[in-house]
Order: sequence, then C-alpha cells, then structure tokens
Amino acid sequence: MIRAGILVTGTEVLSGVVSDRNGPWLSRQLYALGVEVAEIAIVGDRPADIEAGLAFMEQQGLQIVVTTGGLGPTADDLTVEAVVRHLGRELFLDADLEQRIEQIVRPLRQRRGVDSQALQAGNRKQATVPRGASVLQPVGTAPGLVIPSGRGDRDDGGPVVVVLPGPPRELQPMWRVATETQPLKEVLAQAPQDELHTMRMFGIPESQLAQTLREAQQAGVPLDQLEVTTCQHRGELEITTRLQKRDAAAYSAFERYMQQAHPVELFSKDGSTIDEQVAALLSERSIAIAESCTGGMLAARLTDLAGSSRYMHGGLVVYCNESKVAQAGVEKQLIEEHGAVSEQVAVALAEGVRTALDAEVGVGVTGIAGPDGGSAQKPVGLVWLSVARAGQAAFTRSVRLPGGRPEVRERAVTVAMHMIRRALQPSAGDRL
Amino acid sequence: MIRAGILVTGTEVLSGVVSDRNGPWLSRQLYALGVEVAEIAIVGDRPADIEAGLAFMEQQGLQIVVTTGGLGPTADDLTVEAVVRHLGRELFLDADLEQRIEQIVRPLRQRRGVDSQALQAGNRKQATVPRGASVLQPVGTAPGLVIPSGRGDRDDGGPVVVVLPGPPRELQPMWRVATETQPLKEVLAQAPQDELHTMRMFGIPESQLAQTLREAQQAGVPLDQLEVTTCQHRGELEITTRLQKRDAAAYSAFERYMQQAHPVELFSKDGSTIDEQVAALLSERSIAIAESCTGGMLAARLTDLAGSSRYMHGGLVVYCNESKVAQAGVEKQLIEEHGAVSEQVAVALAEGVRTALDAEVGVGVTGIAGPDGGSAQKPVGLVWLSVARAGQAAFTRSVRLPGGRPEVRERAVTVAMHMIRRALQPSAGDRL
Repeated sequence: MIRAGILVTGTEVLSGVVSDRNGPWLSRQLYALGVEVAEIAIVGDRPADIEAGLAFMEQQGLQIVVTTGGLGPTADDLTVEAVVRHLGRELFLDADLEQRIEQIVRPLRQRRGVDSQALQAGNRKQATVPRGASVLQPVGTAPGLVIPSGRGDRDDGGPVVVVLPGPPRELQPMWRVATETQPLKEVLAQAPQDELHTMRMFGIPESQLAQTLREAQQAGVPLDQLEVTTCQHRGELEITTRLQKRDAAAYSAFERYMQQAHPVELFSKDGSTIDEQVAALLSERSIAIAESCTGGMLAARLTDLAGSSRYMHGGLVVYCNESKVAQAGVEKQLIEEHGAVSEQVAVALAEGVRTALDAEVGVGVTGIAGPDGGSAQKPVGLVWLSVARAGQAAFTRSVRLPGGRPEVRERAVTVAMHMIRRALQPSAGDRL
Repeated sequence: MIRAGILVTGTEVLSGVVSDRNGPWLSRQLYALGVEVAEIAIVGDRPADIEAGLAFMEQQGLQIVVTTGGLGPTADDLTVEAVVRHLGRELFLDADLEQRIEQIVRPLRQRRGVDSQALQAGNRKQATVPRGASVLQPVGTAPGLVIPSGRGDRDDGGPVVVVLPGPPRELQPMWRVATETQPLKEVLAQAPQDELHTMRMFGIPESQLAQTLREAQQAGVPLDQLEVTTCQHRGELEITTRLQKRDAAAYSAFERYMQQAHPVELFSKDGSTIDEQVAALLSERSIAIAESCTGGMLAARLTDLAGSSRYMHGGLVVYCNESKVAQAGVEKQLIEEHGAVSEQVAVALAEGVRTALDAEVGVGVTGIAGPDGGSAQKPVGLVWLSVARAGQAAFTRSVRLPGGRPEVRERAVTVAMHMIRRALQPSAGDRL
C-alpha cells in the first residue's frame, strides 16, 4: 500500500476564515490513483509548524507528501524555504524560470502598483528552487515542485514531496502535471491498480444499507473480495467499492443484488450525481421553479452547471403570499383555506410557474425552514414539494426534514432534485 | 501563549466526500479565547492514525487537544478507545450515563429497526468513559469528554484532551459546556485575556491595504502595539486585531486612520458582516430581486437569515430573455438593442421587479458567468448590477469578475450585497 499525507499551509485556513478545498480534492485524486491518504494537516504560515508537519509525515513512513499554499512572492510565503530546509536540500536560482515568471507577472503586478525592485525580489524568490527537483511551470504566477525522495543526493527512502500553490485553479492542473514527473510516477506505479466503482442511493438510512450488506453476504454475494465503504452526504448514501480487476464478477453480483434490493433508492450505478442526471433528463425539455422556503437555492442549484440556460426558463422566489398569488398565479383562496405550506399550494405553485414561464416541467416548493413559524400541525422542517408535467398529474409529496434552518433548506433542495429525476425518468414513473 | 491542536477524525472527511466544518469553527472559538491553534489534523477512523495524531500534538507541547467525531455506538467509532489507550487511562461503565443514553436513544433506534441487543451494546459502549474525566452530557446521543492533563493519575504536563462528537449541532453547544469544566477552565485562564477587534473592507486589493498599513505606521499610528492580521475572503478583506486592554488608545488611532484612508471601502468597524448590515438596513423596508447569471443565489443569500420574510418580497430568476420580458417587465426592444447583459437591462430588471413585486427596493443582476457566452466586448465575468429605490435614480454599475463560473456567480452576489448597503445607507449616499 502506498500512503500519502497532505500538508495544507495558510494562516487564513488554519484560523477558520477560509475553508480549505485543496485537501479534500487532492484526497479524492490520490484515492482514485490507489493511494491511501493517512492524514490532511492544516498548519499556519510559520516555518516551524510546516517543518513539524513534514517531520511527522516522514515519521509515519508516508511515501508521498503534498503541500499546498505559501508559494507567493512575498516574505510571508515560506513553504519552499521550510520544505527545503527540512529536506536538507540546496537552493539555486533558476534563471530560465525567473525569466518566465517575470514575463507572466510584470503586467499583473505593475497594474497593482508594485515597484520594480519589489517585483524583481519576488520573481527571484519564486525562481529559487532546490537542486534535483522537477519544476512545475506556473499556471498562475507561482511554479510548483516535485522533490524526489531522499535528503540531498542520498535516497534514504523519505517521501516524494510535491509542492503546489494554494489557489485551486492553479493547483488542480499542476497536480496532473506532477503525476507525470518521474519521481511521482515511480511511486504511483507501486500503488495497486484497482478499479473504483461508485453507487449512489437516496431515501434510505445508513443503518438499512448496513442491513442490506449483511443480507447480501448471507445470500452468497462475495463481499469479502470487495472493499466497500459507505458514506452519508447531503441526505444521499455513497457506496464506493475498490476491487482488483480479477474480482469484477463479484462486483457485478453485488451491483445486481443492490439493484434488486433497492430498485427505487439506487439512483446511480455509474457514479453520476443527481445534478448530472437531472441535467441530462432536462436536456430535451424546459423547466421553471417556484420556491418559497428554499429562497432561490433550488434555482441556484439547477443553474450551477454550465449549459443550464438551454433548459432553465427561470424561477420565482415566492417568499410572501402576495407573490405566490401575483407571480405564480396561486389562488388566494387556496392559501386561506389550506395555508401556504400545503399540498394544494405546492401543486398550484408547480402548475402555476409551468404556465407562467411556459415550461414543460414546473416545480413548487413550500415549507417551514424555521426557526420560527412552526406549529403542532405544521412543524419546522415540514416541506411540500410538487413536480408538474404537461398532460400528466403532478407528482407531489411532503417530507419532514431534521436540523436547523440551513439544513432544512439544503435538504429540501436535494429532495426536489430527486423528485424531478423520478418524475422525468420513464422507468421510475411507476414507482412514484 | 497557550497552544492547541484540533484532531478531526472521520474517513468520510479524510477522503474528501464530506467537508469539515468543525475544525474551522473550533479554531475561531479558540482564537477568540486567546489560544493559538498550531494545527488542524484530519485523520481517518483508524485507531493507529488517531493515536499518531495525538502523539504528534503531544510532542509539539500543545496544552489543549480537541478531537471531533467517532463517538457513535457502532464498532467503527473508535475515538474514545484510541484516546484512552494513548493516554494510558482506565475505562469504566458509568451506570447513570448508560441510563441517560438509553432514555435518549431507545425511541430513535427502535424506529430504525435496531434490535434490542445491539441497542444495549451501543449504549454501553457510549457510556464507557475514562476515570477522572468530566462527562459532557449528550446533545444528540453521544456524550463528550474533558480529560485532564496527564496519564492515569500522574499529571506530567500533557494536554487537556476534549473529546467532542462530529455533528456540528451537537459539537457547538457541547464545546461551550466544555469550556466551563475545571481542567479546561484552568488552562484557558492562562491564555492572555486580549481584546479582539474586526474591521471589514470591500473594494480594495490586499496589496493596497498593505500599503495603507505601512503609511499608517509612518504617520505615527503605533501598530507595533497591535497584532494585526489581514485576510482576503469572498472578495472582502477582514482585518483582525488582537491587543492588550492597555493598548486601547493605539487601536482607536488605527481605526481612525483606516476610516480616513478608506471611508468608502471600510464598511464594518464592529465586525458585523455585510449580510447582517443589509438585514438591518432592510428591516424597515421591503426588497425584491431579479437575477440572471446568479440564478437564485442572491435571493438565497438574502433569505439565509431567519426573519428575512419580514422584508423579502420575493425574487425572479430571469434565466431566459422571455422571462426577463414576461416576469420582470423588461422591454423586448431594450434587450434587442443593448443585449441582455447591459446597463439598460440591469436597470430595467431592478425597476421592473420593484414594481412587479411591490417592493421599496429592487435589485437587477445580469452577467456572463461562463464558461461560454462571452465575447470581446462582453467577456465572461462581466456583470451589470442595479439597485432601484422608490423616488430615486437607480444606483448602477458594472464589474469584471475573475475566475470560473462558480467564482463569478459567488462574487457577483457579494458585489450585489455591497451595492444594496451603499444604496440604502444614508451616509454612503453621496459616495455612490
């Protein structure tokens, strides 16, 4: 097994002001390459803490360490200095690299009013790299590094250290280049070349999935040949299976069992997300949204993906009763009789917005996100959702969602996404 | 200086499927208590990795270690076991605690079909605690622990270890209880009782702020008495200052200097966020939104806070030209002449939605989020925004935002929030 550690540097991340996206992203990349991640450590910009983090990962015998952040031109960007000192490597000024950085940053930094001496000092700092390292060309302004195993010229079996910049848009393409460098390629070649498969489920608790896995084993599915991990996330269950190629038959049996046991709940066998599936189902259709408690979040989620303008006609955030009536054409009497959070109003919103925005599919969401506004009959967390389609009866249901205001809102959006899928997927039609 | 480490456990967090919210939250709490956080480490559910993480924090001489996650009733929840083994403590079954857990979980777990033997085993596991530890009563189903410094009965100066559950809704109130326990209280009493102040700015780059700080120092502001950290986040700059009470005059001088140097950009001197300020400014008004490229995100942000239904009349997600015309009352000719992304259409959206939803304030947002749809004249990242108010000219501007589709969308929402503030704040009126 090849094991890796990720060392995230940056006082703004450590202090909790900015949330780190690089650690989780790199972790998923390494996992897909067959590498086990032992630890993600977040430290500040202090060289001593960076060195301590590196030392710890070395002690644990990790074969790969990836650092992120701290590669900028200013004095508080200290990652390269700390890494190089820790590894006992020698630094030199890479003149070619200095010139390339110079070409990239001059227009940028001049605009910001950095004087030319500070500019040159910054370039020199970024172009000063350890001997024997592979330089990863800048995507933004900072180069990355892949430093081979060992201290100085001796290879004493320490980790290959990959030094990457902090901005995700720079880090991600640079990581792909790093995996093609000789030192990292050699380590990665030792990782088991396993297959990874992902199934996704919605609408059952994790405990019931655990029960299904036990029953599958009893029914003769050779689960001991597979490494199955399950994880609950945003109300969905993700089932990731790692297997060797020769055990493909075992995985097929597992997949068939899951399909039979949970034909409705198992919505993805190829790892595709609900967002991708809904986008695919909508590609030949058009949709419009009228939402109350989710306040725009469902429309925002449907427009997250590029290309959504092809099918998204628009949305109404009907946050007061007047706008439910005026914008979505809900009859005032319906609200008076049944309340704004009711089956009738959810259907009227879905049908109303479908008509008002001239779309094939309409979605209505109305609920009580809290913390106020709940009652014994209609508690906080109660949400009514409806999907209307031309020439068909609306598909409508209510859910009672746990958690506080942000959780109720986010979960309601996920429920709506799954209802859209089930309403539009022909094979799911009879299980509504 | 008192230093702390945060040990986040959980394979779902380490593997990047779920993003950790507890580390950043605890980091902010500790910072506010005068404690310096040296490291946030994320490890999987493996006891060996949990112990290695603890050992590392001990080696660094940290006085406080907070662990999160792994306190559930099942066999893969191993944090207490790993912590206790590492600290060389003895476990015992706390009969009172077992009974309390039993009362909490029985109705929950029976509903999920857990058999009574498994139920009892789970309760026992959770009620088995180290001798000498303070038990933090369950908020959800799992109790937390505060384990005093030292191994067994000897106090050899190791860290106080606080063991907290993973769900933020359980962790956060339990942390507050933990800070009142004797062992943690004693360590926290040694932390410097500094004051913390936060200023927030919008609309200037970090390099310009650095320049202002240098100028302030030259102008005689005693910045060496203050510990100033600056951080860029969501397009805003956050300036946090830690100071001793006796240096209050120095901070006043600093604040005055900043106010004079950046009267428009400095929008918060009391740490209040733009969301809180906009909510306060809207409390006696009403607002309606018509947004295109942000696809519902601005409406979602305005309804994030509880109580927003008092002023939020509603929103229109006008994602196609037809809905700009039909819903927001934009003249078709205006779009044909100037294009959907234009000053004229932004104003028409703001005025149109204000009228259509009968609100005092109307906001229009139209832009090109990308990756497609850009041109030489109207590149990806160009966004026009307008705030309309009854009886006043609309406040309108365009921005060119960097980054990909998600960054452009998120940044446009932040720009809109600041424009709403400036349009509604009387004192800012002359600086529009």
